[in-house]
Amino acid sequence: MTTSDPRRCVCPGSYDPVTNGHVDVIERAAGLFDEVVVAILHNPDKQGTFSISERTELLKGALAHVPNVRIDAWAATLVVEVCRQVGADSMVKGLRGGTDFSYELPMAHMNKHLSGVETLFLASDPSLQHVSSSLIKEVVAYGGDVSGLVPESVLAALRERLV
Amino acid sequence: MTTSDPRRCVCPGSYDPVTNGHVDVIERAAGLFDEVVVAILHNPDKQGTFSISERTELLKGALAHVPNVRIDAWAATLVVEVCRQVGADSMVKGLRGGTDFSYELPMAHMNKHLSGVETLFLASDPSLQHVSSSLIKEVVAYGGDVSGLVPESVLAALRERLV
Amino acid sequence: MTTSDPRRCVCPGSYDPVTNGHVDVIERAAGLFDEVVVAILHNPDKQGTFSISERTELLKGALAHVPNVRIDAWAATLVVEVCRQVGADSMVKGLRGGTDFSYELPMAHMNKHLSGVETLFLASDPSLQHVSSSLIKEVVAYGGDVSGLVPESVLAALRERLV
Amino acid sequence: MTTSDPRRCVCPGSYDPVTNGHVDVIERAAGLFDEVVVAILHNPDKQGTFSISERTELLKGALAHVPNVRIDAWAATLVVEVCRQVGADSMVKGLRGGTDFSYELPMAHMNKHLSGVETLFLASDPSLQHVSSSLIKEVVAYGGDVSGLVPESVLAALRERLV
Amino acid sequence: MTTSDPRRCVCPGSYDPVTNGHVDVIERAAGLFDEVVVAILHNPDKQGTFSISERTELLKGALAHVPNVRIDAWAATLVVEVCRQVGADSMVKGLRGGTDFSYELPMAHMNKHLSGVETLFLASDPSLQHVSSSLIKEVVAYGGDVSGLVPESVLAALRERLV
Amino acid sequence: MTTSDPRRCVCPGSYDPVTNGHVDVIERAAGLFDEVVVAILHNPDKQGTFSISERTELLKGALAHVPNVRIDAWAATLVVEVCRQVGADSMVKGLRGGTDFSYELPMAHMNKHLSGVETLFLASDPSLQHVSSSLIKEVVAYGGDVSGLVPESVLAALRERLV
Repeated sequence: MTTSDPRRCVCPGSYDPVTNGHVDVIERAAGLFDEVVVAILHNPDKQGTFSISERTELLKGALAHVPNVRIDAWAATLVVEVCRQVGADSMVKGLRGGTDFSYELPMAHMNKHLSGVETLFLASDPSLQHVSSSLIKEVVAYGGDVSGLVPESVLAALRERLV
Repeated sequence: MTTSDPRRCVCPGSYDPVTNGHVDVIERAAGLFDEVVVAILHNPDKQGTFSISERTELLKGALAHVPNVRIDAWAATLVVEVCRQVGADSMVKGLRGGTDFSYELPMAHMNKHLSGVETLFLASDPSLQHVSSSLIKEVVAYGGDVSGLVPESVLAALRERLV
Repeated sequence: MTTSDPRRCVCPGSYDPVTNGHVDVIERAAGLFDEVVVAILHNPDKQGTFSISERTELLKGALAHVPNVRIDAWAATLVVEVCRQVGADSMVKGLRGGTDFSYELPMAHMNKHLSGVETLFLASDPSLQHVSSSLIKEVVAYGGDVSGLVPESVLAALRERLV
Repeated sequence: MTTSDPRRCVCPGSYDPVTNGHVDVIERAAGLFDEVVVAILHNPDKQGTFSISERTELLKGALAHVPNVRIDAWAATLVVEVCRQVGADSMVKGLRGGTDFSYELPMAHMNKHLSGVETLFLASDPSLQHVSSSLIKEVVAYGGDVSGLVPESVLAALRERLV
Repeated sequence: MTTSDPRRCVCPGSYDPVTNGHVDVIERAAGLFDEVVVAILHNPDKQGTFSISERTELLKGALAHVPNVRIDAWAATLVVEVCRQVGADSMVKGLRGGTDFSYELPMAHMNKHLSGVETLFLASDPSLQHVSSSLIKEVVAYGGDVSGLVPESVLAALRERLV
Repeated sequence: MTTSDPRRCVCPGSYDPVTNGHVDVIERAAGLFDEVVVAILHNPDKQGTFSISERTELLKGALAHVPNVRIDAWAATLVVEVCRQVGADSMVKGLRGGTDFSYELPMAHMNKHLSGVETLFLASDPSLQHVSSSLIKEVVAYGGDVSGLVPESVLAALRERLV
């Protein structure tokens, strides 16, 4: 690869919805690569909390300050196929702890096996290690306040949808 | 805090049904705190194996020998809200191994974040480390004998319900 | 036990379908025991990807080169009961990493508690550590190529069923 | 136990030197117990970075704002013997992650076995999870700035001793 | 392999000294194999707590009730070479938890790579999961009572050597 | 950052000596960055198996086929200071399993805290997960054959030094 090629990575996820944990990883990836493709991967047979266009809007709002980010969605597609389509030879993922790692390790080996695409892991910001979309939704549904753990616009959307 | 305030902790769980692993943790918490509130947390949208009143009765029978224990149930409530309502500034949970810990760690950070409530972890009695309500139910349903792993009254109730 | 008794072990699983990871563990168990009983355990209330007779046929094809292997299926039965029926005092399982171990440890203690049957763990072949039936099926369903990770006949069956 | 007995716990460690991670755990223990005994455990055959009286002074400075704390040192003594001497039926320890837990679990079981003393684990403040006395010393020795990770007085003492 | 060949496994360790955790694993291995070779592996450059002949005597006493056990010592030898010399195609080791597993996994892969010898892991008896030779020695040296965790003769030898 | 800046990362280690596991990680990093600085970090107070110039020569031989690699050594220096000096805003490290991760996580947080430098983790090639310099040296010292796990020139150097 020559320095004239832009270096591009993929940050895959379901982003249902985006959390500050996601934003942290994407910001850091954007500091290391010329372009970050935020890929919303979804299974069209499964109903999420937010629709794909809602997730996209929430991501756009949360990442408006990061210039070299592109957001797109794929249905029923392998992440390595996303990488191929957008011209990325690696993806970047956050790791929150040992369980994340045990789960991500076989996925990384499988993706390397399928296509040679590399998975680069970043240690999550410690102050956001307890933040996942599913735990956030559970807390909001039961009346808890997750200010500081998700972007402001997501906070409003979660309350409207779940409370 | 002054010594005149009673020290109170919460032992939360779904207790569907109580096992000897639960009893061990609650007994030990009762030795460390003036009062233990055993909080049955449940999601009213999900059907359990036992009803809330059945779970309460089985807990009462299993904990009859522990004087400073109170049993109560909450539907669709955050555990930190339970702590607030009963006046407890900590909860006590058993840890059976690394997987428990990886699962409990983000929950503990979230609960601390939401309210300042502390989670105190006790290492499970090694001879009961393999005991969980779900594994117990699977074994009983397939005809296995779980004597010694659950209280006597639970053993009878499980057989009646599952075999 | 005398040397005249054949040493027999059980390799339990749902085998829906068999992968090269399973084949590796069964081959190694067959090198250590006189006979290996490959036990397809299934819950008749749950629909799998392949029927029990399909799973059996795929296992037969994949293990045709291992002479001291017997394949059989049990519905809604504890693995320790399978061991009792076939006259095995141990089972052999592969471990792919820390998460597998954390999951298998309580099962092994429970099975030892229920019947005295031992669980012997073999470290999975590193080049197959990312291989599980569920990940294989997800990859195939989304169009990925899992050649080298499952037997040839399984590859064909997966494509026919899932793509 | 009656509410008239003061509830006392032990926070054991080598404290060579105290870090902000230690201070966080001791402060939280002091909120849960009437008195916290900070026990400096040391092996007189091993030379530390700071002497026992230096470690004690640094702890005193770091904990001056916590009224219900007592600091004391024991040479070549089991922590359960410390608990017996000071009249504590539990100790409180911070857990920084899975490795801490795997190390602490057998210690907790051993201490329970030796004397019935309970070990209560608190999840470390995420923003201090990377802080240990040994890593702090390594960083300082090589010229790194650990401001915010240790008390001010410890920062000065470390620079004087190690740089 | 035919049923006329005796099935032999190796239980390697430093056994400095043998604990009830070791005895448990060796007894269980002896129930699964025709012969168990207990292999004391030691580095002649390192001084242990007990000499090789002392370790051998303590093992003999602790295993007098297990007929199909042979005890032998090797200096500066790979365990796979021990297996080759005694004609064993597997070794059996106890696993006490996640840390043991993370340590043993690369060793097992290395030994498989070097010689094809298999490592079979048994989950340690939960009531002995906190027992290791090094922790036992530390406890005894500081005056703790480890009755029930080591054989009687080892208890006496430890007190004489360390207290 | 603009695409005209070369993207540079550091692969730090003691490389005493380089293994095929190191080579794999460095090759993959070299595919993702314009330049990889292989940084031999050493403590001048500690004697290694190979001298710094020997380690450098062995690395040069092992990496002759990777054009965008630079090898250099630093004594008693923090890795974040190395990154600053060479103009790298990230380092790349291999992860072999859960234990590696638990060890590397606090280091990554500390380095991020000290300087903002990112640590990017790559999952080790599964077929090399059991390979570490220390295990390699132990095996060679006891007469084992580590062909395929280290570069040819390292194999010769290890035999000459250790056997």
